[in-house]
Amino acid sequence: MFFLLRSKKEYVMLTIQKVRGTRDFYPEDLAFRKWLFSVWRKVSERFGYEEYDGPFLEPYELFAAKSGQELVNEQMYQLTDRGERKLGIRPEMTPTLARMVAAKRNELLNPIRWYSIPICWRYEKPQKGRVREFAQYNVDVLGVDSPRADAEIIAIGVTILKELGFTKDDVYVRVNNRFVMEQTLASFGIQKEKISQVFAAIDKKERLQKEEFEKWLSDIGLTSAQRVPLQEFLERKSYPENSQFPALFDALESFGVSEYVEFDPVIVRGIDYYTGTVFEAFDRKKQFRSIFAGGRYDDLVEVFGGGKLPGVGFGMGEVVVEEILRAYEKVPPLVPTVTQVLVTVFSESFRTQSQNICNILRANGINAEITLTEEKIDKQLKYANKKQIPFVVLVGPDEVVSQKVTLKEMKTGNQQTKSVQESIQIIRSYVRT
Amino acid sequence: MFFLLRSKKEYVMLTIQKVRGTRDFYPEDLAFRKWLFSVWRKVSERFGYEEYDGPFLEPYELFAAKSGQELVNEQMYQLTDRGERKLGIRPEMTPTLARMVAAKRNELLNPIRWYSIPICWRYEKPQKGRVREFAQYNVDVLGVDSPRADAEIIAIGVTILKELGFTKDDVYVRVNNRFVMEQTLASFGIQKEKISQVFAAIDKKERLQKEEFEKWLSDIGLTSAQRVPLQEFLERKSYPENSQFPALFDALESFGVSEYVEFDPVIVRGIDYYTGTVFEAFDRKKQFRSIFAGGRYDDLVEVFGGGKLPGVGFGMGEVVVEEILRAYEKVPPLVPTVTQVLVTVFSESFRTQSQNICNILRANGINAEITLTEEKIDKQLKYANKKQIPFVVLVGPDEVVSQKVTLKEMKTGNQQTKSVQESIQIIRSYVRT
Repeated sequence: MFFLLRSKKEYVMLTIQKVRGTRDFYPEDLAFRKWLFSVWRKVSERFGYEEYDGPFLEPYELFAAKSGQELVNEQMYQLTDRGERKLGIRPEMTPTLARMVAAKRNELLNPIRWYSIPICWRYEKPQKGRVREFAQYNVDVLGVDSPRADAEIIAIGVTILKELGFTKDDVYVRVNNRFVMEQTLASFGIQKEKISQVFAAIDKKERLQKEEFEKWLSDIGLTSAQRVPLQEFLERKSYPENSQFPALFDALESFGVSEYVEFDPVIVRGIDYYTGTVFEAFDRKKQFRSIFAGGRYDDLVEVFGGGKLPGVGFGMGEVVVEEILRAYEKVPPLVPTVTQVLVTVFSESFRTQSQNICNILRANGINAEITLTEEKIDKQLKYANKKQIPFVVLVGPDEVVSQKVTLKEMKTGNQQTKSVQESIQIIRSYVRT
Repeated sequence: MFFLLRSKKEYVMLTIQKVRGTRDFYPEDLAFRKWLFSVWRKVSERFGYEEYDGPFLEPYELFAAKSGQELVNEQMYQLTDRGERKLGIRPEMTPTLARMVAAKRNELLNPIRWYSIPICWRYEKPQKGRVREFAQYNVDVLGVDSPRADAEIIAIGVTILKELGFTKDDVYVRVNNRFVMEQTLASFGIQKEKISQVFAAIDKKERLQKEEFEKWLSDIGLTSAQRVPLQEFLERKSYPENSQFPALFDALESFGVSEYVEFDPVIVRGIDYYTGTVFEAFDRKKQFRSIFAGGRYDDLVEVFGGGKLPGVGFGMGEVVVEEILRAYEKVPPLVPTVTQVLVTVFSESFRTQSQNICNILRANGINAEITLTEEKIDKQLKYANKKQIPFVVLVGPDEVVSQKVTLKEMKTGNQQTKSVQESIQIIRSYVRT
């Protein structure tokens, strides 16, 4: 990553590397991202969700008020602008969503079905599954306080996983409910003020030995009479019937995604603002971090002068998805080349003819490149081959006389002499295999 | 923009507005941006250009080395991260392009035809045509030192303008050449060390009175014998023949865009790194700032250990384009709604039937919403109407018996009883008018 810059006729050698935890997206890298984004968009729109976006920088206070302590104090990039404003680079999208919805609460149609694909920044240690700059798909429905909305959101998540090529044997969504958990802990005599500490312990349970977890609970002050039924509850495979769970699972069934969803009392999510359903998607083998995670947040946004605005949604980062896709070999072959045909130039005296044909191809919606410099035909064909351009057009003396072109399919090597209109039809109907 | 946040069961009222110079993109706003981006992408790919992207934050030094003083010292957002790295938020894309190309110089196929649509930040006074956060389309071809490459890049710009709906009577591209200008100034006896000062004066000429410009030249130290031929030259309508201009205009002609392009000796561009062709596109009435601007920069990137890497490209910001499109009433009607059909729920006892039909529609690639809460049919129709959803599906007692659905086209009010498969065909073939 050395390069030279000429500044005022003097050469200055510079070694400048990209910032740690960031990625350069060369066309072959961006091809993956474009494919993933297109799946996110397609599924969102299949469910009638509309795309929105917000600023990359927000007032520091917006995040300080809403996001968790760790996110704001340890991970968020902060700066002061030239007007002395304290700003944060968004580490997540939900605060912006809340701000935007609150600002137009009375104009927006209910329900609000929205998605976004923001680029976010977090100062975390770069490692497997973690970078500092990443795209995070967000999808939310606001204005509906019903388990059917939770099911619709989960169905979107599952549909994305299916669209990416995962089966129910590869991945699943683990579902729980914060309200049910609070009631359950209370029924064991666990005091209200201990609940968030207990949630924090449950959230880490899977990474702990049984004794470590037991000790943590006991350190919080849970008696043996409280710990025993709690431990039993956390082993449950079936949800409590006296709850919203039956309605949620009925709705999941009607959306056709229940095979992908399991009740799991260990899922409580680390974030304070969730009030009801919470969920996280994982690969079944649990080799990776969660693929997406979210929940219901009925108290998060309360509009000034308005009523409650219930909401449910999730976030899905690009990095873990990519890791799992690659590990499971689910990434389709992606070619960054958009060019459908290279129009070669036989020699400079034939350039005008080649350029005219190139113009006609483009006017007919064909993505066409033309060779700009004087090159031997062999070298032009080699370029097309390396770039995986499927067709090449040749215009030489014979073609000019016959008013046709030679169309060569690079993969097979087949050559046909055709009119430009016939060539357009052939190029259009070509499907890369 | 007031809203309430419940934090640990206490209400805190917050007034948080978006940062000055930023914009929220509600779905109806994003619809415009998505349309503009789609035109940028379509035209770029029509010419065989591939999309790339880079990080939003780069080392401060990258911009300090390459970007102009004003951009870095007055406009760039800077920060220091938790690892004490001095970073800049990208005010432009070219330094990142140069860094990326230099890092993979030997692997990349020649020519490099790339485009990108980065979001950039500049601390400028927000005003007409200026915001602090904006998308800027960038297109470049590297590795070709020929006026044909310049013509191809200009042709891409013109094709975008045409695709946006502008005619040759609305807009045009003014072209000049820095090398020719340097030769010309030298031929008038103007010393080499004065040339960049003279360029700075010419760059501002159109905003000055004739006397002011004359005085500026004379303040630089130009004699009357130098000023007179310079003033004459700056009035020229035809390009000097003894230059690259004839080849450039021949190439522009062959690309079919020469009607949009004019020689204009006043265009010199304020940026130091341009070495040859320079150009700026404007509305003919010159009521707006430039639509796009760029040029040839053959000395900008010199790879360590490699040779020269000639390049030519331009940038087009979204804000001026949007202003002119709106002033000229060229923005097509854009509906943010992606939903093609709303599946209504006649009553809760019919929900399962409605949900099944909704699932079938989605599985067949139709964007379908379903009503999640219990609502009167009238209210559901009103929602579809307000949201401009073109179709509504009704499933009541009669439809369940007949195994059909009632499909209502909202614009005409026409209702037909059809099978689900027939409905899919009708919805698919619908074109919004």
